[in-house]
Amino acid sequence: MPAELPGHHVVLGTPNKLKLDCGIELGPFTVAYQTYGTLNAERSNVILVCHALTGDQYCAGIHPVTGKPGWWELMIGPGRVLDTERYFVICANVLGGCMGTTGPKEIDPQTGVAFGLSFPVITIGDMVRAQALLLDHLGIQQLFCVLGGSMGGMQVLDWAARFPKRVFAAVPIATAERHSAQNIAFHEVGRQAIMADPDWCGGDYLAQGRNPTRGLAVARMAAHITYLSEAALTRKFGRNLQERDAVTYGFDADFQVESYLRHQGSTFVERFDANSYLYITRAMDYFDMAAEHGGVLANAFRGTPVRFCVISFSSDWLFPSWESRTIVHALNAVVANVSYAEIQTDKGHDAFLLDEPEFHTTLRGFLDGAAEHRGLRFR
Amino acid sequence: MPAELPGHHVVLGTPNKLKLDCGIELGPFTVAYQTYGTLNAERSNVILVCHALTGDQYCAGIHPVTGKPGWWELMIGPGRVLDTERYFVICANVLGGCMGTTGPKEIDPQTGVAFGLSFPVITIGDMVRAQALLLDHLGIQQLFCVLGGSMGGMQVLDWAARFPKRVFAAVPIATAERHSAQNIAFHEVGRQAIMADPDWCGGDYLAQGRNPTRGLAVARMAAHITYLSEAALTRKFGRNLQERDAVTYGFDADFQVESYLRHQGSTFVERFDANSYLYITRAMDYFDMAAEHGGVLANAFRGTPVRFCVISFSSDWLFPSWESRTIVHALNAVVANVSYAEIQTDKGHDAFLLDEPEFHTTLRGFLDGAAEHRGLRFR
Repeated sequence: MPAELPGHHVVLGTPNKLKLDCGIELGPFTVAYQTYGTLNAERSNVILVCHALTGDQYCAGIHPVTGKPGWWELMIGPGRVLDTERYFVICANVLGGCMGTTGPKEIDPQTGVAFGLSFPVITIGDMVRAQALLLDHLGIQQLFCVLGGSMGGMQVLDWAARFPKRVFAAVPIATAERHSAQNIAFHEVGRQAIMADPDWCGGDYLAQGRNPTRGLAVARMAAHITYLSEAALTRKFGRNLQERDAVTYGFDADFQVESYLRHQGSTFVERFDANSYLYITRAMDYFDMAAEHGGVLANAFRGTPVRFCVISFSSDWLFPSWESRTIVHALNAVVANVSYAEIQTDKGHDAFLLDEPEFHTTLRGFLDGAAEHRGLRFR
Repeated sequence: MPAELPGHHVVLGTPNKLKLDCGIELGPFTVAYQTYGTLNAERSNVILVCHALTGDQYCAGIHPVTGKPGWWELMIGPGRVLDTERYFVICANVLGGCMGTTGPKEIDPQTGVAFGLSFPVITIGDMVRAQALLLDHLGIQQLFCVLGGSMGGMQVLDWAARFPKRVFAAVPIATAERHSAQNIAFHEVGRQAIMADPDWCGGDYLAQGRNPTRGLAVARMAAHITYLSEAALTRKFGRNLQERDAVTYGFDADFQVESYLRHQGSTFVERFDANSYLYITRAMDYFDMAAEHGGVLANAFRGTPVRFCVISFSSDWLFPSWESRTIVHALNAVVANVSYAEIQTDKGHDAFLLDEPEFHTTLRGFLDGAAEHRGLRFR
């Protein structure tokens, strides 16, 4: 797939391999990425967008696989919040992903067959280090801003903690500094659904010409519920029936919400790799910034020069606002430059992907202020 | 299994069949039930306990299949809230269940093989009508009290609405008058997990000597998360590791919460039938009391003589307190005798099964008062 897909690809991790958190050295490996807008002469207008669990580098424009607009099409473009007439936006498929960056579905050059479960378990930190190598390759020393929602927000936090001098501003959105027990539990259900599918073949399905689409669809359906709020589900679907006047006393999708979920499952499997789902959920589960810094989150940001804008959504129960406040408290404890906004909405976790005017206005305002402080000048 | 299991069984629906909501007439069918305590001479001390989705009639004592205490062992016994020295407690396995009452895993007398998906889709109302036939058989005209949590609470509401003269007091616990879009969605995930298992065989697994245990375990794991609260999961497990000092960079159950969930899945499939899971979740999805009464919930209870005590738990996000308040508002609208208690707890939906002193005290107080009004005298 990588060779056929449009966009940029770069081979990294050579001659020096990337030392992963698990101890394995990875390299060479490919990173697939997209860019939007133009890099200025000072290379100072770069925004790195970090994608979420099932996102990819096609955040704007038409997605070459799905044919639908990119996941942040609303946000990126001329005159939009991430204004491509001002900023040079980069988005890379994460390590372990399945849209061109090296992950379990790519061919292991040492064996000539797909990695499958022989791919090393990666972490959020590994994803970020791979992105840093991409920036090195592009000759970009400092990001004007790194931002992203959900798992993207985890990468933002890791970026700011790991490479504080390479980040001018950071916007972690709808995220947390550690993955909660409930969220690990939901991820484990998804993984078990995939592994329960006989077509998973112990992870070796690509070599065997099979695909655990049924298990992956169930995983997606379970996860999708957590991306919405109960209020949003009630508002959108309630107990409305799907193209029928009465229940059928059977197991068809009588209710619209059932039909919607089935659709989410069946379309997802057309664009996503089941093993990637295992690896990326695992990276999120392992994310625990405080644990990486002596049990004290504030230690991750002591003396940080980064300007932060933390954003959460009031009806997000996957990454509830109190988890964002925990980040804000830690940043305040080290007298960091931080602003925080809880956006009032009933749209749940997915609000960061949706048309939320207050969210967009907040982000635009923060970027404008940061650009002024950075001395960025736009025509 | 029914013949081997201890307890009572009665064949009902003969000569007159039971007309189900779907239009099919069912009969003869078996109802398996347990009793605790002694029926008084006036037959006026009967408490009917209605079980939840995955419960059964063995609510107290040692469960003959699992070897563990019954699901309401804390509540039922001498001196306990449902005091078996005062009350005659009856609990029947619901229609469509798998612990002796006729359901999809029982043999269809007309074909000689298990019903499977040829079993008719049943409703909460059908379950209640089957219980009413059981009471007829036992010569019990009126229940002193009908109570239950979750799906048991749905049955309580249906009992009070359908047979107001046969119910003196009713206690719907942690329930709702209609199943929400989010809850339908979670049920659909569970059903899809079962149906995705090739061992489900289109529902015909018993005839084919197979069992979709992997799919059923995934369904149970997903559902189990919804029975707890995020706070309870964090308090019980947090990010604690399972018998290891560090993460393993793999897909074993590194975290205690993963190990716990897997255990919930694997023990569940030893006692529950996958098709029963489909049928009983469907009955809950279809439950919508307002819709059955011209769109106005209060119509279900107009002129009701029943004394109600509605109970919810503050951290229950599956059946949140506002859904109980909706019931209370409807009862108030018809000037019914209703009290309401929201129990403060972090234990989530499962609190109704757990040691919650305030819940137990509230219920005991209500029963004592109702018994006095009913003129029940105890030694």
